[in-house]
Amino acid sequence: MINVGLIGYGYWGPNLARNFAETDGARLSAIADGRADRRDAAARRHPGIAACDDALALIDRADVDAVVIATPLDTHFPLAKAAIERGKHVLVEKPFAASKAEAESLATIAEQRDVRLMVDHTFVYNGAVRRIRALIDRGELGELLYLDSVRVNLGLLQHDSNVIWDLAVHDLSIMDYLIDARPVAVSADGTTIGGLGHENVAYVTVHFDSGFLAHFHVNWLAPVKIRQMLLGGSQRMLVYDDTDPSEKVRVYDKGVDVGVKDGETRRQILVSYRTGDMHAPTFDRREALSLVAHEFVEAIAQRRKPLTDAAAGLRVVSLLEAANQSLKAQGRRISL
Amino acid sequence: MINVGLIGYGYWGPNLARNFAETDGARLSAIADGRADRRDAAARRHPGIAACDDALALIDRADVDAVVIATPLDTHFPLAKAAIERGKHVLVEKPFAASKAEAESLATIAEQRDVRLMVDHTFVYNGAVRRIRALIDRGELGELLYLDSVRVNLGLLQHDSNVIWDLAVHDLSIMDYLIDARPVAVSADGTTIGGLGHENVAYVTVHFDSGFLAHFHVNWLAPVKIRQMLLGGSQRMLVYDDTDPSEKVRVYDKGVDVGVKDGETRRQILVSYRTGDMHAPTFDRREALSLVAHEFVEAIAQRRKPLTDAAAGLRVVSLLEAANQSLKAQGRRISL
Amino acid sequence: MINVGLIGYGYWGPNLARNFAETDGARLSAIADGRADRRDAAARRHPGIAACDDALALIDRADVDAVVIATPLDTHFPLAKAAIERGKHVLVEKPFAASKAEAESLATIAEQRDVRLMVDHTFVYNGAVRRIRALIDRGELGELLYLDSVRVNLGLLQHDSNVIWDLAVHDLSIMDYLIDARPVAVSADGTTIGGLGHENVAYVTVHFDSGFLAHFHVNWLAPVKIRQMLLGGSQRMLVYDDTDPSEKVRVYDKGVDVGVKDGETRRQILVSYRTGDMHAPTFDRREALSLVAHEFVEAIAQRRKPLTDAAAGLRVVSLLEAANQSLKAQGRRISL
Amino acid sequence: MINVGLIGYGYWGPNLARNFAETDGARLSAIADGRADRRDAAARRHPGIAACDDALALIDRADVDAVVIATPLDTHFPLAKAAIERGKHVLVEKPFAASKAEAESLATIAEQRDVRLMVDHTFVYNGAVRRIRALIDRGELGELLYLDSVRVNLGLLQHDSNVIWDLAVHDLSIMDYLIDARPVAVSADGTTIGGLGHENVAYVTVHFDSGFLAHFHVNWLAPVKIRQMLLGGSQRMLVYDDTDPSEKVRVYDKGVDVGVKDGETRRQILVSYRTGDMHAPTFDRREALSLVAHEFVEAIAQRRKPLTDAAAGLRVVSLLEAANQSLKAQGRRISL
Repeated sequence: MINVGLIGYGYWGPNLARNFAETDGARLSAIADGRADRRDAAARRHPGIAACDDALALIDRADVDAVVIATPLDTHFPLAKAAIERGKHVLVEKPFAASKAEAESLATIAEQRDVRLMVDHTFVYNGAVRRIRALIDRGELGELLYLDSVRVNLGLLQHDSNVIWDLAVHDLSIMDYLIDARPVAVSADGTTIGGLGHENVAYVTVHFDSGFLAHFHVNWLAPVKIRQMLLGGSQRMLVYDDTDPSEKVRVYDKGVDVGVKDGETRRQILVSYRTGDMHAPTFDRREALSLVAHEFVEAIAQRRKPLTDAAAGLRVVSLLEAANQSLKAQGRRISL
Repeated sequence: MINVGLIGYGYWGPNLARNFAETDGARLSAIADGRADRRDAAARRHPGIAACDDALALIDRADVDAVVIATPLDTHFPLAKAAIERGKHVLVEKPFAASKAEAESLATIAEQRDVRLMVDHTFVYNGAVRRIRALIDRGELGELLYLDSVRVNLGLLQHDSNVIWDLAVHDLSIMDYLIDARPVAVSADGTTIGGLGHENVAYVTVHFDSGFLAHFHVNWLAPVKIRQMLLGGSQRMLVYDDTDPSEKVRVYDKGVDVGVKDGETRRQILVSYRTGDMHAPTFDRREALSLVAHEFVEAIAQRRKPLTDAAAGLRVVSLLEAANQSLKAQGRRISL
Repeated sequence: MINVGLIGYGYWGPNLARNFAETDGARLSAIADGRADRRDAAARRHPGIAACDDALALIDRADVDAVVIATPLDTHFPLAKAAIERGKHVLVEKPFAASKAEAESLATIAEQRDVRLMVDHTFVYNGAVRRIRALIDRGELGELLYLDSVRVNLGLLQHDSNVIWDLAVHDLSIMDYLIDARPVAVSADGTTIGGLGHENVAYVTVHFDSGFLAHFHVNWLAPVKIRQMLLGGSQRMLVYDDTDPSEKVRVYDKGVDVGVKDGETRRQILVSYRTGDMHAPTFDRREALSLVAHEFVEAIAQRRKPLTDAAAGLRVVSLLEAANQSLKAQGRRISL
Repeated sequence: MINVGLIGYGYWGPNLARNFAETDGARLSAIADGRADRRDAAARRHPGIAACDDALALIDRADVDAVVIATPLDTHFPLAKAAIERGKHVLVEKPFAASKAEAESLATIAEQRDVRLMVDHTFVYNGAVRRIRALIDRGELGELLYLDSVRVNLGLLQHDSNVIWDLAVHDLSIMDYLIDARPVAVSADGTTIGGLGHENVAYVTVHFDSGFLAHFHVNWLAPVKIRQMLLGGSQRMLVYDDTDPSEKVRVYDKGVDVGVKDGETRRQILVSYRTGDMHAPTFDRREALSLVAHEFVEAIAQRRKPLTDAAAGLRVVSLLEAANQSLKAQGRRISL
């Protein structure tokens, strides 16, 4: 039985608490939050759990084997470091860390202390996303050509980070999971509207050597909620619409076949279009976060790397950091 | 009565022919196309009209007062120049010209010869777009914050230009009409898939001094057809979805109000959200191209500049040219 | 403080328990269910509450002032009767009772015992439905012409009632709330598919003297989920789509104006069409069931009839009973 | 070469004219319409065609082998009869005739005169509908359970017939094509709004001995356009949405499997749900009316019955006539 302590009972913490409380092999033993009202709420929902106001005290508890960190971004590094150094396993909310240097440091000391270090890239555990990965693995899409993602809504403006770190982190973690090739550069443009200090509309482009192109539109000031990803392949193309209650993944047997004919006098490019059926596969509808909790507990029990390990966290933070650098450099392409 | 000669009876030409044939004050007198099958088609649809294979001969005809040019892009400049120099009024398909230099040259000689020179920015005459302009003019959107446009589908790959010149030209002409501020720079990224010589997936960002940001996604390789524009304002925001058969324009009484409070120890940013009604106004459903034809004929009759004059054509071509430069410079921001 | 006892902790019971637990002026004191697993679940969610297996014992408890009945339909009458006779206030799940006779009997004895008797017509407390009622009250729709409702999905087949009693009861309760005129007759058609004993596809038509017509399509065997109501008025028409996450109510300024002209030789009917704007008003997004709980508690405290009183329950049960009679009589129109 | 004469150049006539003009093996030789403006329009569109004002004169022409009748309903019978008696082949617009007696009479005399008699049930030639028929033929839907059709919009009120004869005729002709079983009875309800003489909102139910149920909602006074058909089968279910520009036919691998288990003390019904993939097949996108024209010409050339022959017209008119009888009899079920 893994005893789990949770730090942070704000927006996402209650979901983590609920899922760990219902995960076989885990016991939610303690929750820490600096605010009394949140501790009260935690105590009401989870009677019998220790509620404390000091995160370090929670880490030190004997009945805490593993620490889940759901606090503001700038505290991820010190809290995770403290927990790892005390030999605790750690699950960190996304973004994994506030910088590439922090992410690398955490990965190193977790390796040294031989504890499990995992990042909560929740969408990697989403049934629709895993279904898409399976389609790619079976070669149904052919060669991947581009990924285009839109995640916009009228959102809660964050005071401590821009919209890329808040929203694009989801889509970058999905890209990191789906695309085996490694990106070589990032560029980003954005704007800060309304006198707030952080970009609230932004576009991120991720470049690959192969010509594959990934693009992300994130926006806290949109009147409608859009969660749509296009993934173009040479054989098939798909649309992943997370707002569709029934058919989230639609696979289109559509594409362009390009050939070249060397004629008498010149090469001719032959283009033919395929427009075939559309197919919406079913997928696992279980709550992704329950699978996150399960993976964390299993990785600890089996002494193995979790699916979304520190390296995944590092890769995504590297993209985010490069995006921020590009924002400050007029959208210049930043090599990774 | 204005006698109109049309050059080019390929994809768009038949629509121009039909609309000029039905426009009061105009008479469609001649059609030129190099291909015999198209001349035959033109003759069947428009009996009594002269069908010739030589564009210059059409320009020279005494029964042609005004020339409509619907030919491949690289012929716009020589044909328009020839027509203007013979004192004919000219309507050119979009994109207006293949370069800024060509566009400027045409504008200059049309001024010298005192003929009307117009570009067919069709969407500027679209009822939905004109409705949006009216909303802006009445101040209903407040200060404009951003414009985001998506125009993607499985499209006919063009052999003589990239997807920006083929698709984004529509949205840039809409932006040119809706936004009074003048852009200061353009950046663009794209990729060329399938060994074809031109970008078939691309993103264009247009920068303004005010912080207003415009972004365009164009794609010939998308499995679904999307024609969606978001326009964010400080008072209201709207979605223009050209694929929606009934409510193309939706105005949302949504937004974020940002205030600043100077408290005892520090300034606090106060953010409040408005989530009000949605309103889908009706608009003029007439075919935009009929209004294009009407405007051309009226501008000639009244000896005035048309709404989409050479200056509008030049502005949009400048954006397209800058986008191409940015594509070749790794997405670097190109000043206008 | 009203002490509330809940009978039935199956599908809907947990929602009632949660809402009464959070309602000011109420205290959830006891839950009864015959199944041990459900009592355990209730005890875990609501520590400190008496969980008993005997409904009558719950009714008799001194710390139960009001009884909420969420049990199978055929037990509504005996349980409600027992509770009323012990002087307890009663809230009954929909359908109110299994027959018109039962409904009338309950209404009578509640009147005699001077206790509050309420039916949980949840949709009457739904923000969208109340918004529609407000539109009607302000005359925005004009004279009401027809109501057409579709409620279909791949649903849990019920073993103790047909699809009309399971699904149409929602829409009939909405109609009862929105339409002041009283229906005069009901007809129904349906079919029983797959060897089950109850109709799983059915159509109900409700007739009014005025010519107003209401029609209901309910279906447990549909591949898609549809929750759509059209309400036609002489001034405006609306669509209420409960599956739309953002704009559930859409009001169309559309209609037909019919006039009559007496010409020289004959009367002519003049028909003109209005096609104006569409408007999607905002509405109260609070959970309807929380308002149900609030209304029950307030009606008890203020010793007044609740909004959805026994008379409302009786009216809807009368429609359901007539529908069943019509089903058995080849769809013959049954007078009310 | 079949010489075709068209009677009636109002709403639908121009479409028929255009399609016959482009059909191999046919020559559009003459058009008759009582109104001069329509004859002028026909002459402009179809130069070289005889335009006459007298339908009987057209029928008598030597250069008319086949007559297409697109006139008001009450003239179908006399015009078709006159043409058949002169030995001409006849294509009649839907509804085939104003009564079952008329339809039978036409069928008989066409048989006697050995001419081809066809009804323009256009939707039977629609690619989506034929695709559905192919799915049924291949057994993909299993046993058919129900058909539910909605065809509503803000429509042109007809002065000479009710909404059933105007709109439901389409859906009844689709049902007649898709469902091999023969209906045994029809019931209908409707209402007449606005003082017009004919029902403008109506519901038709068609009964079969097998328990299969078909239901049709037609409405001229709806604020939105809906063209949706559900077809439930024991193996799969489908939705045919004619307003969807891309995926009109969606096949759901969903259903309910019902079994019976005889246990110790009682029979138990076992219900299990299947929720599998959704599949949207492609289909022939050609204009249905071009296939109607082709079928008429081919049936004449091959001296065979057309797909939508007089018997099909008769079957649909029988349903319409029974629906009208039911409307007048308070929705009573009318045997066929």
